[in-house]
Amino acid sequence: MNLVTLSIILGLLAVVYGFVTSRQVLGAPAGNAKMQEIAAAIQEGAQAYLKRQYTTIAIVGVVVAVIVAWALGAISATGFVIGAVLSGVAGFIGMNVSVRSNVRTAAAAQSGLQAGLTLAFRAGAITGMLVAGLALLAIAGFFWYLTGPAGHAANDRVVVTGLTALALGASLVSIFARLGGGIFTKAADVGADLVGKVEAGIPEDDPRNPAVIADNVGDNVGDCAGMAADLFETYVVTVGATMVLTALLVKGVSNLMPLMSLPLLIGGVCIVTSIIGTYFVRLGSSNNIMGAMYKGFLVTAILSIPAIWFAMQYALGDMNTPIGEEAYSGRMLFYCGLLGLAITGLIIWITEYYTGTNYRPVKSIAQASVTGHGTNVIQGLAISLEATALPTLVIVAGIIIAFKLAGLIGIAYAATSMLALAGMVVALDAYGPVTDNAGGIAEMAGLEDSVREKTDALDAVGNTTKAVTKGYAIGSAGLAALVLFAAYTTDLREFFPTLTVNFSLENPYVIVGLLLGALLPYLFGAMGMTAVGRAAGDVVVDVREQFRENPGIMTYASKPDYARTVDLVTKAAIKEMIVPSLLPVLAPVVVYFVISAVAGAENGFAALGALLLGVIVGGLFVALSMTSGGGAWDNAKKYIEDGHHGGKGSDAHKAAVTGDTVGDPYKDTAGPAVNPMIKITNIVALLLLAALAGHAAG
Amino acid sequence: MNLVTLSIILGLLAVVYGFVTSRQVLGAPAGNAKMQEIAAAIQEGAQAYLKRQYTTIAIVGVVVAVIVAWALGAISATGFVIGAVLSGVAGFIGMNVSVRSNVRTAAAAQSGLQAGLTLAFRAGAITGMLVAGLALLAIAGFFWYLTGPAGHAANDRVVVTGLTALALGASLVSIFARLGGGIFTKAADVGADLVGKVEAGIPEDDPRNPAVIADNVGDNVGDCAGMAADLFETYVVTVGATMVLTALLVKGVSNLMPLMSLPLLIGGVCIVTSIIGTYFVRLGSSNNIMGAMYKGFLVTAILSIPAIWFAMQYALGDMNTPIGEEAYSGRMLFYCGLLGLAITGLIIWITEYYTGTNYRPVKSIAQASVTGHGTNVIQGLAISLEATALPTLVIVAGIIIAFKLAGLIGIAYAATSMLALAGMVVALDAYGPVTDNAGGIAEMAGLEDSVREKTDALDAVGNTTKAVTKGYAIGSAGLAALVLFAAYTTDLREFFPTLTVNFSLENPYVIVGLLLGALLPYLFGAMGMTAVGRAAGDVVVDVREQFRENPGIMTYASKPDYARTVDLVTKAAIKEMIVPSLLPVLAPVVVYFVISAVAGAENGFAALGALLLGVIVGGLFVALSMTSGGGAWDNAKKYIEDGHHGGKGSDAHKAAVTGDTVGDPYKDTAGPAVNPMIKITNIVALLLLAALAGHAAG
Repeated sequence: MNLVTLSIILGLLAVVYGFVTSRQVLGAPAGNAKMQEIAAAIQEGAQAYLKRQYTTIAIVGVVVAVIVAWALGAISATGFVIGAVLSGVAGFIGMNVSVRSNVRTAAAAQSGLQAGLTLAFRAGAITGMLVAGLALLAIAGFFWYLTGPAGHAANDRVVVTGLTALALGASLVSIFARLGGGIFTKAADVGADLVGKVEAGIPEDDPRNPAVIADNVGDNVGDCAGMAADLFETYVVTVGATMVLTALLVKGVSNLMPLMSLPLLIGGVCIVTSIIGTYFVRLGSSNNIMGAMYKGFLVTAILSIPAIWFAMQYALGDMNTPIGEEAYSGRMLFYCGLLGLAITGLIIWITEYYTGTNYRPVKSIAQASVTGHGTNVIQGLAISLEATALPTLVIVAGIIIAFKLAGLIGIAYAATSMLALAGMVVALDAYGPVTDNAGGIAEMAGLEDSVREKTDALDAVGNTTKAVTKGYAIGSAGLAALVLFAAYTTDLREFFPTLTVNFSLENPYVIVGLLLGALLPYLFGAMGMTAVGRAAGDVVVDVREQFRENPGIMTYASKPDYARTVDLVTKAAIKEMIVPSLLPVLAPVVVYFVISAVAGAENGFAALGALLLGVIVGGLFVALSMTSGGGAWDNAKKYIEDGHHGGKGSDAHKAAVTGDTVGDPYKDTAGPAVNPMIKITNIVALLLLAALAGHAAG
Repeated sequence: MNLVTLSIILGLLAVVYGFVTSRQVLGAPAGNAKMQEIAAAIQEGAQAYLKRQYTTIAIVGVVVAVIVAWALGAISATGFVIGAVLSGVAGFIGMNVSVRSNVRTAAAAQSGLQAGLTLAFRAGAITGMLVAGLALLAIAGFFWYLTGPAGHAANDRVVVTGLTALALGASLVSIFARLGGGIFTKAADVGADLVGKVEAGIPEDDPRNPAVIADNVGDNVGDCAGMAADLFETYVVTVGATMVLTALLVKGVSNLMPLMSLPLLIGGVCIVTSIIGTYFVRLGSSNNIMGAMYKGFLVTAILSIPAIWFAMQYALGDMNTPIGEEAYSGRMLFYCGLLGLAITGLIIWITEYYTGTNYRPVKSIAQASVTGHGTNVIQGLAISLEATALPTLVIVAGIIIAFKLAGLIGIAYAATSMLALAGMVVALDAYGPVTDNAGGIAEMAGLEDSVREKTDALDAVGNTTKAVTKGYAIGSAGLAALVLFAAYTTDLREFFPTLTVNFSLENPYVIVGLLLGALLPYLFGAMGMTAVGRAAGDVVVDVREQFRENPGIMTYASKPDYARTVDLVTKAAIKEMIVPSLLPVLAPVVVYFVISAVAGAENGFAALGALLLGVIVGGLFVALSMTSGGGAWDNAKKYIEDGHHGGKGSDAHKAAVTGDTVGDPYKDTAGPAVNPMIKITNIVALLLLAALAGHAAG
């Protein structure tokens, strides 16, 4: 069978899994009337937010689509729209499942930890498979159309630019969703904590807190919908970039179709192994939740090894003969695939070390909380800086090994096989907001403490799995950035054969580009943090006002106006997400034109290329430190709440709450949004090249 | 007269100024018996610490000197020793003046703000002039010996390597002093604040706090001695690198002596303009302290313009003819010098904006303190990230303009003229710890509140000037890094003419080097922050114990054991400084050998070169964000203490104290130590090249 068709079928399988599993999940009991009432409020708020967010993105999207159509033609514009729409769909469905599973998870947790885990994890798995499946369908479907009905050669320029434009659509939605959702969720969370826990002295998720529904809405729109859009984007960009690089680099192969389709097929077979893996997420006799997660992941990873081998053999026929005029064989590409799986495993392991409650980093933050707010934050910042080291070494080793095995294509294959596991990784992550919400509903509906204990145990693991996904996404971005940069330089030579662009570090314009690129994540992070701080301040003011205007809230005599807070956060998040999201879109264009004007087009292209690598060199560290540090702070608080250093209510706990608050925008707003930011910068640069070449030619 | 001799005379002028002014300062009244008793305790603690620190550095220094002698010969080892010893001397004398001026400043402040300012600033100016003068003497004297009595040509390899080894000596002392002093000062400060202000509710500098003397000792050993060693190093490396680059790059000049001596002469004439500037630091009718500082700086900067012109004309003769076979004339180099002055001015202005109490950033942190500890820290982190943007744009613009004017030598001259103002800049900075101490002495000796108000006003400006020096040092490092990298590539070609090293961004080993380089400041920062947190925790424990063991302390019935805390912090700081200081020394060596083993010497050299730029691309942002952010946090606290948002004792103030505590190791330990770290990495790489070449040849 044609490889692309096969990939499409495997992508559809993921959608079928999502459909079947969501029927199972939605068929589970939805709890008592009070629980359903609370869940309905969360659902309503989440839908209201998402509607507003998508409306705003649609406006920006139409403008960008018009620009793409003008600069690159109708096919690219179509690709852009497909990427954008399917990214939105993945987030939308994921969030809809999430807001319906939360209450069912709370209900299931009443009958036991395993029941709660199964329900929450299945809900997460729906989002996971839909992200991987829809991403595969988007890129495979578009590729099928272009190379089939539209009749283009696999490595035709129209195909290459079309795939890049599709990635731009996914990335644009992703950065808005990550940032908007991230600002929403953390403004609500921080605001709720500051007035609730710190000022009013009421526990987390107390129904008297007017920001409590907004906080729970945030889990869904940020940690679920935003994250889904992010991983959809990462998948599309990585697989797409591997195909583009194959088209641009591989020489001496008469029919590129099988080789270009191979990344799709790898994605397809790993959807099957991911689906199988989900059925192995079960508690053992020790009731170790993280262990259950590992079981599922390991089954997927191990089954993926033969699956990738067979996919490669099916596509390439012979695994031992060099491909075309290249120095590497299929076997070498397979080893690169294994390397990608190993990198994924190592990043998960390192992230668990830095964010899990059993290890030195989290314990050291908890210990530092004993001496106060200041030392908690200092130690948290120290851990966040330190947490960049091991992942960087893993990525560096990955680059070296993959490059030695099969050059740049080897690096691309390592990244592709990392992303092929996205269905499973997203499943582990998307389970988090479901359990977080379930805990909130249990608390607000006044269920027994034992239920909350179960959801808290599930949630603590969620903090680690959330950090894992972010480390995984940014780690793959480290590899993908090299692939995108290679695409950039190859494109440049093809489009402008007469220019001699000097990418050497000895060219000062390269240093200029590196510095400006490294600046972007800092500036972007600053904007994200400021936005959360500002919006959270608004929440604090609003909650204080509600307490003052309506003293009955504290005595349970009257209910707070939840919708008012949700509405306030919605408006703030939408307003705050726009400027930072446009930063990576505009920066490459501005840098190219300014440096070209000052020092000629050669140096303009050199500085732009260096900008692409500067943004990853700077962004990798910003993102890793923020996401790991934030997770560690959160779990240090949980560790103290488990009864260490005086437990809940102690001074150490208060200090740990401060650290958690600081870590919130670090790990859920600024940090994770760096990943789509890096991609956008790269993709805009690629499309800018194509546009400049088109206009130079036309 | 011979240019080098002239430079040596101008360097001696700075030493004479230091001698004369220190007699003036030490002749001022030293206050009452109680004040002198306190000052003596600080003095004793500072000397004890410095003795221990220098002993430790001496042990490491002897080991390194032996390695340098073995690998590069006796002359290089001599250069290393000169650099190390004079760097130590600059810090030692500066600190000794500082610990004697503090009590005299407190006494002078009794008779008015102007009297206090004059005394404190003169004390700072002694350190400033000694740093610039001794640095100039070290490099000019060594150069004079090598090209005179020793009879080497100016661009002989022995001279080049000797100057580089001298820079290594300065850098090695500098990183230990910056880090050791930084850990000491912040462990004491944070520890004292945590137990004193937060737990016991006693004000800063209260004599009942057992850590109060250690805190005041810290100002001297960290902010004075550590800073002096840092700027000494920056001066030596920048001027030395400009000379080395001239020797390596300039073609077609028969006698290189005048051109190589020119950077020394620029340093020399600017010592004169700096001395003149110090006499213009006077309060106007508005009593604006920052304004008084600006007056002095502006006079120095404006006088330096003609001074640099005349120095260049004297050295080059004709300013309009191209130099040798190069495309630029003396006039272009002069413009690069002006550019350096402009960059210095802009960095001062930007730093004041980000750390001064009159502008948005500090006010926004103060405002965020109203909603609690968490929002204070979030906003502070946001500002620290944002504060990297404008300095980076200034540096990028500086690189582009200087390069267009006179290529790499142009960048070197811009950096040299920046550093030529070091005497004045260090004077502005070294004044800070003197006033900080004076405030402490006034408080402990129970002087009238009006005295403390005056020293507080002086101290608030000190926070900004401290941040200024750090921004200035790291900004100049941004330019110097390019110069050092150029030296590296030129050396490489000269030493290994048969190797073709590919520094292009398309070479994955270059990316590997960039990533590993960018990792270094993160890892280094993590170690510094952890060290402060750990040592501060020890202080907290010690102070709590003293309060428990001796309840009479709180009722003034008995005195705390100050020396015990000083001793504890001393031991902790010395222990903690060693491993992080060795990181940048060992990293280049390890990276070169590992990558060479894996991928051949060509790629080893490529990765090492990329590491040098990676460390600046990563380090620039880490250092700028930490130093500006820390200064802003500190002054946000001061802004609240001035009566905003509820003033002292309010909840906003408590939150601001947390922010200040977090900012402490950011701005005074980890952040500023990044600057010598960057230099060491670069210098070790240069010397590694020379050693490899020597052993390959020998």
